Amino acid sequence: MMEVARSSGEAQRRCLAWRAEGLRVGLVPTMGYLHEGHLALVRLARERADRVVVSIFVNPTQFGPDEDLAHYPRDEAGDLAKLERTGVDLVFFPSRDELYPPGHETTVSLARLPNHLCGLSRPVHFGGVATVVTKLLAICLPQVAVFGEKDYQQLLVIRKLTRDLFFPTEIVSAPTVREPDGLAMSSRNAYLSADERRRARVLFETLCWARAEVARGERDSRRLGALMRQRIESRGGVVDYVAIVDHETLDELERIDPGALERGAHAALAVRFGATRLIDNLLLTSQADRDCPAGRAVTR
Amino acid sequence: MMEVARSSGEAQRRCLAWRAEGLRVGLVPTMGYLHEGHLALVRLARERADRVVVSIFVNPTQFGPDEDLAHYPRDEAGDLAKLERTGVDLVFFPSRDELYPPGHETTVSLARLPNHLCGLSRPVHFGGVATVVTKLLAICLPQVAVFGEKDYQQLLVIRKLTRDLFFPTEIVSAPTVREPDGLAMSSRNAYLSADERRRARVLFETLCWARAEVARGERDSRRLGALMRQRIESRGGVVDYVAIVDHETLDELERIDPGALERGAHAALAVRFGATRLIDNLLLTSQADRDCPAGRAVTR
Repeated sequence: MMEVARSSGEAQRRCLAWRAEGLRVGLVPTMGYLHEGHLALVRLARERADRVVVSIFVNPTQFGPDEDLAHYPRDEAGDLAKLERTGVDLVFFPSRDELYPPGHETTVSLARLPNHLCGLSRPVHFGGVATVVTKLLAICLPQVAVFGEKDYQQLLVIRKLTRDLFFPTEIVSAPTVREPDGLAMSSRNAYLSADERRRARVLFETLCWARAEVARGERDSRRLGALMRQRIESRGGVVDYVAIVDHETLDELERIDPGALERGAHAALAVRFGATRLIDNLLLTSQADRDCPAGRAVTR
Repeated sequence: MMEVARSSGEAQRRCLAWRAEGLRVGLVPTMGYLHEGHLALVRLARERADRVVVSIFVNPTQFGPDEDLAHYPRDEAGDLAKLERTGVDLVFFPSRDELYPPGHETTVSLARLPNHLCGLSRPVHFGGVATVVTKLLAICLPQVAVFGEKDYQQLLVIRKLTRDLFFPTEIVSAPTVREPDGLAMSSRNAYLSADERRRARVLFETLCWARAEVARGERDSRRLGALMRQRIESRGGVVDYVAIVDHETLDELERIDPGALERGAHAALAVRFGATRLIDNLLLTSQADRDCPAGRAVTR
């Protein structure tokens, strides 16, 4: 039986009762409009915990004034049906008025990680993410919380705040789930026109091409980034950023040398098609075709 | 048997084990150099919880660059003896390197409460308090945490952040414990010379005098504040602030009318004697002598 909680008090009582029974609680925070990517997070939480909680909350504080808060897609009935089929114990729908009541004034912020990639064009975004995730962690006190690797900078922010603030929660990440043509699943893909949707496959193709270039010996991040940008622009994408970054600090790498690859280097990008901003990222390795099915990366 | 934990991992395991056994955990965060005021907090925690944890940590992030971090008094052996006598289950000595490890970057801040009283002359103070208390709450996950009313603004900041971030912790406050002459107990009283110590009694005397003036019908905060300032300066105190404030928002009150008294109004002050900055506060009421023994308030 899947329960639904609409107040933090209900959700907290349920989660604390499970914890008191010695059960492991797994939390999957989402903004709803669920797709296979979210359900993969739920399945991973089920493997790691005895009880799985999914929160659905379109968090207003992580949207800038010109962003898509008002239009963010919602489908509560569809989400509940998917979660029931996938096997979830508690769905938590926080209310905006409860998470941000009149007079609330406490925020959680990070000093460095947000000053990279998406944080540069979305200045309030990661403060909003950090604050709402802190609230969700304090409400549910999960032993484990699961986040997707598509939102890679978000994953790092949450991992860092969980450690810095000493929540007793393990942050687990799940690989990006992709459409058959490689496009990373995202609730925002619903915004794309049919034409934009066809063009958007260039994002993953470009990441795979970049990985192959690195495997073939490319070491110069600037040159690689410029070529990636060209490939995307040739399909009508408007590049917000394309960057080759350290996988922990998100600092841009000048050289993609073997040491950088060993520490971990990511190619990351944010690109608009029409009004829709999409992000994706891929770990660079010396193996060209890991995660990139043969032929797909270079297909136009 | 009183246990001592010197790492957050030990403290968290102990507290979570107690919680899992269905025991209520009470936390008393301190900076050590314990006096009767702290021990009153411990006794209150014992009344409200099954297990009492006292943390002792001189938190560097709540001191400004010109403040007394380096000189803050410490007495670990004396503190342990007092806590053992008073009856404490766990003493937690976090290390600076563990609470603020290399690469830490997460802070908790409040938008409004710090912009009053002590926050104006100590700009980093309440951010440091909010951040360290969040860490201590996440480590110990206490059902109750106890703070003194002497640090009234700190109490409000902690109460607000606990609610805003949804920690499952009740914040309980304990009345200020005073020396026989009325001076509020504080670890910083140890800094005072004998002469400064004698003069410092003017703080509580002035608060009691202000309460009596209000009970006699004084309604004008500015006039009352100016007279309080005069009394303190006549004993050699250097006033940082004297203010009549709303007990929840800390906004300064222009008029101390019956509605304000009913909502709750505090007289609050921060005063230096030599290099030592002392704070105190008192709830204003229509009863002149509540908490102010007859004759003391007007004695010089």
